[in-house]
Amino acid sequence: MFARIRLATPSDVPHIHKMIHQMAVFERLTHLCSATENSLSSTLFSPTTKPFHSFTIFLLEVSPNPFTDSVITDPSFTPVVKVVHLDLPIDDPEKETFTTNAVNDVSVAGFVLFFPNYSTFLAKPGFYIEDLFVRDCFRRKGFGKMLLSTVAKQAVKMGYGRVEWVVLDWNVNAIKFYEEMGAKILHEWRVCRLTGDALEAYGIAD
Amino acid sequence: MFARIRLATPSDVPHIHKMIHQMAVFERLTHLCSATENSLSSTLFSPTTKPFHSFTIFLLEVSPNPFTDSVITDPSFTPVVKVVHLDLPIDDPEKETFTTNAVNDVSVAGFVLFFPNYSTFLAKPGFYIEDLFVRDCFRRKGFGKMLLSTVAKQAVKMGYGRVEWVVLDWNVNAIKFYEEMGAKILHEWRVCRLTGDALEAYGIAD
Repeated sequence: MFARIRLATPSDVPHIHKMIHQMAVFERLTHLCSATENSLSSTLFSPTTKPFHSFTIFLLEVSPNPFTDSVITDPSFTPVVKVVHLDLPIDDPEKETFTTNAVNDVSVAGFVLFFPNYSTFLAKPGFYIEDLFVRDCFRRKGFGKMLLSTVAKQAVKMGYGRVEWVVLDWNVNAIKFYEEMGAKILHEWRVCRLTGDALEAYGIAD
Repeated sequence: MFARIRLATPSDVPHIHKMIHQMAVFERLTHLCSATENSLSSTLFSPTTKPFHSFTIFLLEVSPNPFTDSVITDPSFTPVVKVVHLDLPIDDPEKETFTTNAVNDVSVAGFVLFFPNYSTFLAKPGFYIEDLFVRDCFRRKGFGKMLLSTVAKQAVKMGYGRVEWVVLDWNVNAIKFYEEMGAKILHEWRVCRLTGDALEAYGIAD
């Protein structure tokens, strides 16, 4: 099987939207997921969202055939292609839904969404990974590692100082995987969030 | 006393650098702080760092006199001015170091550094606050709240969905303050960080 990571484009939004919904189902948080194709398009692909300098999505595609189409949509990133050896072929029940190139049998298997953050101590930008998702039938085959590695490699290429993300404290499998990737878990820090009505109140406050 | 919040400019870097160093001293982390005026200038004020769409710094200035200078450096933000009533005058031992306008007796009292983040569930950007700092002699006078509120207000104005930051779990005073500001503490999430040699390794990996 061939796997490719490339920058997502506006035409990928329907697939990205479906995967975001699947992620919400997996996390049992569908009641908190209000993303639509329109709201994703307008916020992720606006004129100010330059890849790597704002919200950026790497899309993971798979195919039983070598990739023949050119998908260099931005000069700042050359797609990464890998040959993946599998013991058993993958049966994708949603193949039709996630097809990007029917002629060459290419479909979307996952994505990672990230954007720059900044460390004042390092005086350097870094990347923050908001979402890393691999579709159900493609899990435990190294694709998550491939997506995360590609973000890390891009960070090094740009001279950035860190790649950060968050994990649920009970998700021991994920924590083990991240530690094996070289990440440290910052046990002392807690995320604070101001949102909803509590945030809106500041819009009308003096 | 008069307090003003405005967008920082490249000429503020020496003051920002000194405050970052003071923050490192406060956190006993000076050994991790490698920021220089040059590295801050080139990463915080590059052509790609458009205020609110990339790394953004609000500077807090104080003066015994009303502000008379115009500091609208960017059409996207009009400085916020407040009159602060104090029981006792503040004795600032570092006043000379932090003066921005000697004629009008204006000096820098703090800053907040933030940048956009993104929620796929909301399909909306938000703001992430990396640093919020008020100089020692100006603490416990509402300036931290003024800085945080100004970021929250800007988020609402831009239609953003969240303002987030992190806090040390043993810093109960800070946690209480943030909760009073309307923030929720996300107790289950842990920050993961890939940095230093572990990150650099990805630059040479296949």
